[in-house]
Amino acid sequence: MPHSLTRRGFLAGLSAGAAGVGLAACSPGDAGPAAAPGNRIPGEDGDGVPDRGRSTVPFDGEHQAGIATPFQAHLNLVAFTFSDGADRGAARRLMRLWTEDARRLCDGLAPLGDLEPEMVEAPANLTVTCGFGSGFFDVIGRPEERPEWLGPLPEFSLDQLDDRWGEADVVLQLCSDDPVTLSHATRHMIRAAVDYVSVRWFQQGFLNSDGTRPDNGTPRNLFGQKDGTVNPRTREELDELVWIDQGPAWLHGGTSLVVRRIAMNLDEWEMLDRTSREMVIGRTLGSGAPLTGEREFDEPDFAATDSYGLPVIDPASHVARSRNPTDAPYERIRRRAFNYDLPPEPGSGQTSNAGLVFICFQKNPLEQFVPIQRRLDEKDRLNQWIVHIGSAVFVCPPGVEGEVGDGERSRDAYWGAALLED
Amino acid sequence: MPHSLTRRGFLAGLSAGAAGVGLAACSPGDAGPAAAPGNRIPGEDGDGVPDRGRSTVPFDGEHQAGIATPFQAHLNLVAFTFSDGADRGAARRLMRLWTEDARRLCDGLAPLGDLEPEMVEAPANLTVTCGFGSGFFDVIGRPEERPEWLGPLPEFSLDQLDDRWGEADVVLQLCSDDPVTLSHATRHMIRAAVDYVSVRWFQQGFLNSDGTRPDNGTPRNLFGQKDGTVNPRTREELDELVWIDQGPAWLHGGTSLVVRRIAMNLDEWEMLDRTSREMVIGRTLGSGAPLTGEREFDEPDFAATDSYGLPVIDPASHVARSRNPTDAPYERIRRRAFNYDLPPEPGSGQTSNAGLVFICFQKNPLEQFVPIQRRLDEKDRLNQWIVHIGSAVFVCPPGVEGEVGDGERSRDAYWGAALLED
Repeated sequence: MPHSLTRRGFLAGLSAGAAGVGLAACSPGDAGPAAAPGNRIPGEDGDGVPDRGRSTVPFDGEHQAGIATPFQAHLNLVAFTFSDGADRGAARRLMRLWTEDARRLCDGLAPLGDLEPEMVEAPANLTVTCGFGSGFFDVIGRPEERPEWLGPLPEFSLDQLDDRWGEADVVLQLCSDDPVTLSHATRHMIRAAVDYVSVRWFQQGFLNSDGTRPDNGTPRNLFGQKDGTVNPRTREELDELVWIDQGPAWLHGGTSLVVRRIAMNLDEWEMLDRTSREMVIGRTLGSGAPLTGEREFDEPDFAATDSYGLPVIDPASHVARSRNPTDAPYERIRRRAFNYDLPPEPGSGQTSNAGLVFICFQKNPLEQFVPIQRRLDEKDRLNQWIVHIGSAVFVCPPGVEGEVGDGERSRDAYWGAALLED
Repeated sequence: MPHSLTRRGFLAGLSAGAAGVGLAACSPGDAGPAAAPGNRIPGEDGDGVPDRGRSTVPFDGEHQAGIATPFQAHLNLVAFTFSDGADRGAARRLMRLWTEDARRLCDGLAPLGDLEPEMVEAPANLTVTCGFGSGFFDVIGRPEERPEWLGPLPEFSLDQLDDRWGEADVVLQLCSDDPVTLSHATRHMIRAAVDYVSVRWFQQGFLNSDGTRPDNGTPRNLFGQKDGTVNPRTREELDELVWIDQGPAWLHGGTSLVVRRIAMNLDEWEMLDRTSREMVIGRTLGSGAPLTGEREFDEPDFAATDSYGLPVIDPASHVARSRNPTDAPYERIRRRAFNYDLPPEPGSGQTSNAGLVFICFQKNPLEQFVPIQRRLDEKDRLNQWIVHIGSAVFVCPPGVEGEVGDGERSRDAYWGAALLED
């Protein structure tokens, strides 16, 4: 990738680039006589963005945004590989640059080198979340700092993993309620980093959009299920399950990110009648209530039986198998799963190519995601219609804070600062 | 494609399919004792969809919806090829089925054979628009009815067309402000048609989402330009430019759909400074005003010169070249262009794979789209950064109407009825 693709690098050569366009200098400020009224449309010539678009999620804080944050409608999850020869200094420069740029984008401001402020003026709850893969710790020459859980997950018997969705050095999770803002922000972050990293894979996803989502807040996946009902949400739950508070100090307030790409076979799922679909899941499709309850957030009663003495919720249903055992309250995860729906791959014989970019956060994947997935891999009626085709694990450093005065800084100045400083 | 993938066909074999799941019969209505209150979240256990999501665009009418309709945020444009042996009867059955299903989806109702009403309860301005390709008229055995303009466009010197985005027998343009509704509706229409047609290509696109779009209504493309400022909008303009009122009666009220896939080179575009970008286009990036004006809808003044006597709007700029000559007021088109932004193709050496799914409607492409595109192909500064990589042309039959009483039907009962009846 030529250096000049980085605008920071390119700014110096700008006059040459502009001349290359071959246009005479002329300033819009010198515009000619005021034009005729033309076909101006009433109410169509302001430049404002509605309040909803201006809505922002604070970038700075104890933890990174985009983890406890309510789901936005659109996801770009981008994994990167470091360039040959990259070292701790390169990682530090990249993290400084990315942190600064992400903060401005999330605030609705153009980062340095981004000449299109109009493209970011509607952040629409943009968040940018960064994670480090296993290889990151080799690049920075600090393998001893690698969390013991960071790296490929243990194999599951039903996995059909494709390396093209595999482990990577760094990941960015970008989410927004506006797809154009998301596209532009993602583009900026990729371009800003071309001197350091290149894209390894790029996973895009979506949920019911802000303003059309059912008002209980739980979006639906492409099997029609409400997905994410039992998500930990409260501060207490997140402290217990998500935010790391042990081990090296640089990691306190951080978490782990697991991404699984899960293909969902719509062709075969749709052959089931509704009752069968609900029995597979253990919840109703309408309200998302457990089959033993009336409302989405009712607790499932796994002991309840019907008039034939059979369990109302099948013990092999997805809800029964995924629920943490009462003696393991710690086996829960914070999910952020987005749908994908792409054109079918040529020759696949399928009419769809859909599924989930299943992202989850937890203190320790080996103690939280893995035991849940082991239960599901062993037995889950849903396995007949889904298959895990991608897997990667990252560690998310804690939150940051921007410019401070003379006082002591209470948080990292940039992502991973406490890990990356010499 | 096995017949059983069609739910209509599958309904008969349902009991076998359900048994295949291997679950004992049990009804959610027989649920056990009321579950404990659990972790119900205040305000999170209703099932309603906000009003914005319920917003609908009328399906029935003199013209098909999705043409004069204001832009929605998301596009799925799906082109199909007829199965071997398909004939006029097959085309008729397909159009009856699709019209009926599309109407229900746009009304927020599940079509026959769709067991997931929850997935369509937020139409979010869903529209479904149908067009016939050149091959359609051979399939139905009525080549004499093929409009003389229907078929591949004349070649343009800068085209780099890829056949994978080429001509097809039928097209559906589905648009909605909710990506999950759009995905489900598209999926339904593809599945409902598997006995008749298979997918040839599938183009997805997006615009600033409803509620975050700049309040003048013109969304931005990925070069940061407001795109679609001079679109015909009024009833008079649409009658003059879009709705066909001559030729065979079956086509009155219809139009033509041209889709061009236009790749945009972000890597190189971003090397330009802002002034150069604006000179290439002939409009400012901020408001979208012509360089001779102050507001988006001001008429460009192509005669205006600056203090050096040079034209303020470069005669080779995109706005100057695309503007219809004063002696050809008819050379205008109704645009519905959506952005695409996909992972870069492996080995492309690019950091982006972005552009436009450029859709336009007009009475006659040879008299409207073609002369405009010929001017642009001959000279347009923007050509340095864009390339047309796909092209297809369709004829959209007029609008339809649903069930009527004993009275005379004033419109087709289904798409193309007047063309397809024996």
